[in-house]
Amino acid sequence: MEQEFSSTLLENAVTAFSRLPGVGRKTALRFALHLLRRDPDEAVSIGEAIIRMRQGIRYCSVCHNISEDEVCPVCSDPQRQKSIVCVVENVKDVMIIENTRRYFGLYHVLGGLISPVDGIGPDRLEIASLIERARSGDIEEIILATGATVEADTTNFYIYRLLSKSAPDVKITQLARGVSVGNELEYTDEATLARSIISRTPFEL
Amino acid sequence: MEQEFSSTLLENAVTAFSRLPGVGRKTALRFALHLLRRDPDEAVSIGEAIIRMRQGIRYCSVCHNISEDEVCPVCSDPQRQKSIVCVVENVKDVMIIENTRRYFGLYHVLGGLISPVDGIGPDRLEIASLIERARSGDIEEIILATGATVEADTTNFYIYRLLSKSAPDVKITQLARGVSVGNELEYTDEATLARSIISRTPFEL
Repeated sequence: MEQEFSSTLLENAVTAFSRLPGVGRKTALRFALHLLRRDPDEAVSIGEAIIRMRQGIRYCSVCHNISEDEVCPVCSDPQRQKSIVCVVENVKDVMIIENTRRYFGLYHVLGGLISPVDGIGPDRLEIASLIERARSGDIEEIILATGATVEADTTNFYIYRLLSKSAPDVKITQLARGVSVGNELEYTDEATLARSIISRTPFEL
Repeated sequence: MEQEFSSTLLENAVTAFSRLPGVGRKTALRFALHLLRRDPDEAVSIGEAIIRMRQGIRYCSVCHNISEDEVCPVCSDPQRQKSIVCVVENVKDVMIIENTRRYFGLYHVLGGLISPVDGIGPDRLEIASLIERARSGDIEEIILATGATVEADTTNFYIYRLLSKSAPDVKITQLARGVSVGNELEYTDEATLARSIISRTPFEL
């Protein structure tokens, strides 16, 4: 590709920034020029933070969440309930569930969802290691906490079939589907409303 | 501030990214998680490109454009017309004008515009050095190539007054204002249309 800027150093920085998701060359140039106007230490500390993060963070050997150690803080926390495992698509979903402060079990990060269109088969995901964990005998319940998409449904069904064969004693649950808290019926889509009628729960005060 | 993520390394990287213009913590987290999914070399090369850029790029001692050397490639190019200086607000404007491939003179980057509201006075800009260049005797024309904002008008007026006193022989020009090429009259604002009538030019084939 032809070089766009007179400075190769600027060119390289713009190319580097534009490898970030959703960042085009215009935004990348804005980032670079911003840093050039600021104190040199700021750019250095940003660059070093990126390098240190990537070199220092690995994946937990048990649940595949990000971790600075061999086993992540959740898996090694003696306070967490070891008999429940919450299966999520990615690392961010762990953060989202942790932020609710309502879940005290362990996690299992799949690293994606089965998607034949994108060429992602079950072997590219951490499904085999989930089955292995389930067969170890320590786990009583597995919560399938994926989103409500076609890929999530496919993945859940695939995991459900494997689990019911290899670990039939493990209870398999999924997140409740229904009307969002604070939402009016008028703004709830029909499919969700239908599910919320079928899955209605006893009224309790 | 309370730490948001379990990993300090992730926390630091998110904080670093969120110092970029227009990047909030959500986008910063997206950047970080993206890099964690990619090859470690990619994050390292991005980090290093940022650091190298900031440490290797300085400002041209003549025109204040970014440069890897004491004097920038434009100022040191023997092919460029040394008698014309185009005054621009910032480094990006130099790139924009260079991209037209219709300007062959030199530049002078002010580093901003006079803006009393933002507390930017003339002394914070490269105006004194422009006057000095104009007084050197090598310059025949100075093009005020700022935008068409109130701040630009203020800055241009300020520079014009100083130049007409200290370098009365230098011709001062500004970019033509008028209907955009390819634009219909219907979509041209009244102020621009009025200027384009006043500044009408001979019809030439």
